[in-house]
Amino acid sequence: MGQTLTEKILEDHLVEGTLETGEEIGIEIDQVLTQDTTGTLVWLQFEALGLDEVQTEIAAQYCDHQTYQFDFKNTDDHRFLRSAAGTFGAHFSRPGNGICHNVHKENFAAPGKTMLGSDSHTPTPGGLGELAIGSGGLDVAVAMGGGPYYIEMPEVVNVRLEGELPEWSTAKDVALEMLRRLTVKGGVGKIFEYTGPGVESLSVPERTTITNLGTELGATTSIFPTDEKTKDYLARQGREDVFEDIGPDEDAEYDDEIVVDLSDIEPLIACPSMPDNVVPVREVAGETVEQVIVGSCTNGGYEDILPTAKMLEGREMDKKTEMIVAPGSKQASEILARQGWTAELMAAGVNFSEATCGACIGIGHVPASDSVSLRTFNRNFEGRSGIEDDNVYLCSPEVAAAAALKGEIVDPRDLADELGDLEAPGVELPEKYDGSKADLIAPDEAVDDDLVKGPNIGDVPLKDPLDAHLEGEALLKMEDNITTDHIIPATQDILMYRSNVPKLSEFTLSRVDDTFAQRALDSDGGFLVAGENYGQGSSREHAALCPMFLGIEGVLAQSFARIHKANLFNFGLIPLTISAEDYENIEQGDDIEIVDDVAEAVASGQEEFTVRVNDDWELTAELDASERERRILAAGGKLSLTKQQYENEGGAAPADD
Amino acid sequence: MGQTLTEKILEDHLVEGTLETGEEIGIEIDQVLTQDTTGTLVWLQFEALGLDEVQTEIAAQYCDHQTYQFDFKNTDDHRFLRSAAGTFGAHFSRPGNGICHNVHKENFAAPGKTMLGSDSHTPTPGGLGELAIGSGGLDVAVAMGGGPYYIEMPEVVNVRLEGELPEWSTAKDVALEMLRRLTVKGGVGKIFEYTGPGVESLSVPERTTITNLGTELGATTSIFPTDEKTKDYLARQGREDVFEDIGPDEDAEYDDEIVVDLSDIEPLIACPSMPDNVVPVREVAGETVEQVIVGSCTNGGYEDILPTAKMLEGREMDKKTEMIVAPGSKQASEILARQGWTAELMAAGVNFSEATCGACIGIGHVPASDSVSLRTFNRNFEGRSGIEDDNVYLCSPEVAAAAALKGEIVDPRDLADELGDLEAPGVELPEKYDGSKADLIAPDEAVDDDLVKGPNIGDVPLKDPLDAHLEGEALLKMEDNITTDHIIPATQDILMYRSNVPKLSEFTLSRVDDTFAQRALDSDGGFLVAGENYGQGSSREHAALCPMFLGIEGVLAQSFARIHKANLFNFGLIPLTISAEDYENIEQGDDIEIVDDVAEAVASGQEEFTVRVNDDWELTAELDASERERRILAAGGKLSLTKQQYENEGGAAPADD
Repeated sequence: MGQTLTEKILEDHLVEGTLETGEEIGIEIDQVLTQDTTGTLVWLQFEALGLDEVQTEIAAQYCDHQTYQFDFKNTDDHRFLRSAAGTFGAHFSRPGNGICHNVHKENFAAPGKTMLGSDSHTPTPGGLGELAIGSGGLDVAVAMGGGPYYIEMPEVVNVRLEGELPEWSTAKDVALEMLRRLTVKGGVGKIFEYTGPGVESLSVPERTTITNLGTELGATTSIFPTDEKTKDYLARQGREDVFEDIGPDEDAEYDDEIVVDLSDIEPLIACPSMPDNVVPVREVAGETVEQVIVGSCTNGGYEDILPTAKMLEGREMDKKTEMIVAPGSKQASEILARQGWTAELMAAGVNFSEATCGACIGIGHVPASDSVSLRTFNRNFEGRSGIEDDNVYLCSPEVAAAAALKGEIVDPRDLADELGDLEAPGVELPEKYDGSKADLIAPDEAVDDDLVKGPNIGDVPLKDPLDAHLEGEALLKMEDNITTDHIIPATQDILMYRSNVPKLSEFTLSRVDDTFAQRALDSDGGFLVAGENYGQGSSREHAALCPMFLGIEGVLAQSFARIHKANLFNFGLIPLTISAEDYENIEQGDDIEIVDDVAEAVASGQEEFTVRVNDDWELTAELDASERERRILAAGGKLSLTKQQYENEGGAAPADD
Repeated sequence: MGQTLTEKILEDHLVEGTLETGEEIGIEIDQVLTQDTTGTLVWLQFEALGLDEVQTEIAAQYCDHQTYQFDFKNTDDHRFLRSAAGTFGAHFSRPGNGICHNVHKENFAAPGKTMLGSDSHTPTPGGLGELAIGSGGLDVAVAMGGGPYYIEMPEVVNVRLEGELPEWSTAKDVALEMLRRLTVKGGVGKIFEYTGPGVESLSVPERTTITNLGTELGATTSIFPTDEKTKDYLARQGREDVFEDIGPDEDAEYDDEIVVDLSDIEPLIACPSMPDNVVPVREVAGETVEQVIVGSCTNGGYEDILPTAKMLEGREMDKKTEMIVAPGSKQASEILARQGWTAELMAAGVNFSEATCGACIGIGHVPASDSVSLRTFNRNFEGRSGIEDDNVYLCSPEVAAAAALKGEIVDPRDLADELGDLEAPGVELPEKYDGSKADLIAPDEAVDDDLVKGPNIGDVPLKDPLDAHLEGEALLKMEDNITTDHIIPATQDILMYRSNVPKLSEFTLSRVDDTFAQRALDSDGGFLVAGENYGQGSSREHAALCPMFLGIEGVLAQSFARIHKANLFNFGLIPLTISAEDYENIEQGDDIEIVDDVAEAVASGQEEFTVRVNDDWELTAELDASERERRILAAGGKLSLTKQQYENEGGAAPADD
């Protein structure tokens, strides 16, 4: 039976399991990527593992989220990241050099390689045939140490492209069409593999726009085969040597198939406030637009900004509309500047920003109240722009530039009819991507050989192996549906302590009870008690790490959200399921004692645990955990387990975890 | 007797008083300038005056301080300012178009004109022979309404320039030499008039660097005569028509004279943390530099950035040093981009920022902790960069670029010796300043004819004329040396409400007593009681406006800081001086009644007032006020007075106030 491209790459990297949908597999990782908001913790974890050197072929640390450096903590983080990259052997991309996905695509992405990145848009290089997956920071740290990455084998879906895009329709519209059809949940547990005759009509930058937006479908990743266009792109980047001709077998079998006829695609737009709220641009034409932003890892490349420059050249933006261009990389900025396009955009009234994620994550250029903002970004979740009740639309650079010219939403085909002399810019790659590499510091050019930690950068705590005897107070009893936002709020005033676990821990569960953190610190251990669906929402690891730092031993809940439960294992907190009746009977302040030898029971696969409350009555709690999760829990968390393995094996990468 | 240039311009604009040092004069204002952090209140005051149209020849509203738009309140402010400029007839410079002083110099500054601006570096266009003075926002609002500006006639000091600057020495070094000699207090109550044979060796951009930095001397303003260089500069800006040949009479008499021999000037640097802490660069050579920033209204012009581009072309910055270039205007950005210099700077590793004040006021690019930052700015007050205990040095663009190349402070002459092929870039103007005007919206291009107020933009309250009978509770009794920072804290979380007086007022004196604001609102009037030196520190008007909003009628203090006392008059609060003994005897909560007919007594020039406390005992308080201040106070403040006059006179500018 023929293989999909996904199966070929996974088989090449498989260290554990079999490639059957739903089965857990362990794969070797060739490249890792981290950025500045997740990277500090990744490197602190790497340090805590006691390792000396990065084991992957490529590790790259980017500074892209907080490049405006509003606070010295941002600048300190960047300096720490530079020192970590230098000390441990990663490439370091200086603040201002661009967004991780763009810079990685330009410099490191390679067909057939696997990549893990601590950013949700990590799948971007799938457009070059790299299998790239976003994950939590701890997984990245472990992968950097040479450990495999574990994942349930996703379904592989064939997205068959036919035809060619008409004028004014773009790769962004292809991705928006996918979102329109499948919704933001349509890709969960899936890998989208693009195939068919339409592939060859798309340039690599167009392909990476599509793979980038696969994240919005909830997909594990998206991938294209390689071809002459891939080879040509790599050659223009001066990296033809990494080209490999890869693709699925002709008789590959997929779990599902979707057909997209490119020739049917028209200019689309995602309306507020979800990326799948997609309609043809003409349906919302006439809406007054106060702000237009072109940029982000989705549409911030040279090939994305050039069309807007061609459209704006010799024209002026509408005077009530502000347009900001935030290039995705300095390579794009430099080439556009060298070719004179930057001056043309400025002449039209465009405000050029640094190369940064910036506004896409609500940092800078927050829209005015009660106004419409058109953005070439990937997400328009309500409030993400930095203001509640925002009206953010997602569209192609062409639709964005058309709105800037007219001051309202307009299908560029209609604007072209109106103006008479506006031509469809099409897609054009530069002869050579000849930007400077001055801002990319290779491991052998490193300027640091030791970590530089500002006062806000702490160490990552390690937990000891699970005790035989667990006992402590029920320090906090909570309702149903406690989110990770309740556990660690994501507001800027709190998340700026992301690299400072002791400080951040002070805010643990403060939205539920602001005395909790101090009470937990003052106690010798203790438990959390919760209702249904504990830990729903964002996947942030701090929601397990901070309770661990405060000494919490476990959580007794009626049920757990999936990702948070995994994080509890990863940080060594035992997640026990209890009945509704027992939940009702436990009071905050009760003494909780697990009667079993916990270390032994967890290791041996025991599922039922006897919990004694106030030395007065007993309940039965369940532990639902895989063998791997039990090993992690018993060791005191994934970091502790990995460290033990490294120490046992003299620093070599662990073969079986 | 011959006249100084200052006297000539003032005489041309004099509407009240005589030109004798120390005497109060009233002058007509030709141009006004406001920026985004002070401008909202200026326009709200203009609106409160009930006026329809700007009366000055030029009014220009810039958006430069908060162009990163971190918060929707920034963006709303910009939109409000655009609508105010459109509604009332001012030019509007969009966010991203540059710093007010740079854009004003390029587009509006004209020899022989007077200008008032609500920004301390307003004197910048003095380099073109304009007499430009920084002031509070209310003075700007009144001037926009056609009212005169009142000031005590300053001393006029002749700064005689001889010789010519050597290679690698710059206008910045001239200004630093002035600071070295005179200190940051050396210019208080003075106007510096530059004369002598050295003047003609300096280009207009060099002259404006010097006049800009006159603010750091504490000077009222600084001014240069005009000459062929002025004419040539204006011609390159396409504005030769505004040229006038002006200068002092040969026998002009000055209050003082300073001689600066330009040929003696060497590269200088202001060390942390005061602009007058100036030493030769060689004295601090070798200090490791982590951050270099070129920009600001002092050194953010094309002529400032070009030398750094020439120095960095074909070279790479030190890898441990970050260099940010924040152009002072889009005109500069566009010309640099068009000529290819932007690409060269990026290639060397420079991170290009938007055209903004930004880092100069601690917004963005905050230095890392315990690190050195070299900046071409005008101020290095401790903490102004956004981090306490900062190490900010001020220098020329050439010294900044040298540090970026070497990674440490170095005299560029020594670096040139070391490198062998580094030539002094000198000063070069572009053939034509041919940047686009797309971002400067003239009154006849306005897109708004009504004010657009976001939810954070309130109205400015007006006070009624002074009552005959003032009585109320002593709502707060304070110690000596209460600063305006105590009255209205300047932290970002509070000052973001600067356009929202009701909200901002909630924080009034919260650092002294956080129940005060609510108690004041709940009371029907009331008084503040303070010790010595009440209201010292920053000149912010909100420190009088907010107590006024809360209903405070007056302040009884042992003594007042000068500027805050003027602000109390301007907002209609009576400042009464009491003895130390009476201060001791008044308790918070006492009932305070002014026995006299206050309105009548203030108007008639009465100096002693009888204050009855708790209907039990009496004290004598003094009112020290000029006739003009009494008229302002009696009317309920300057805004109320001006409004009454406008209403009485059918909207015409008041002749005598």
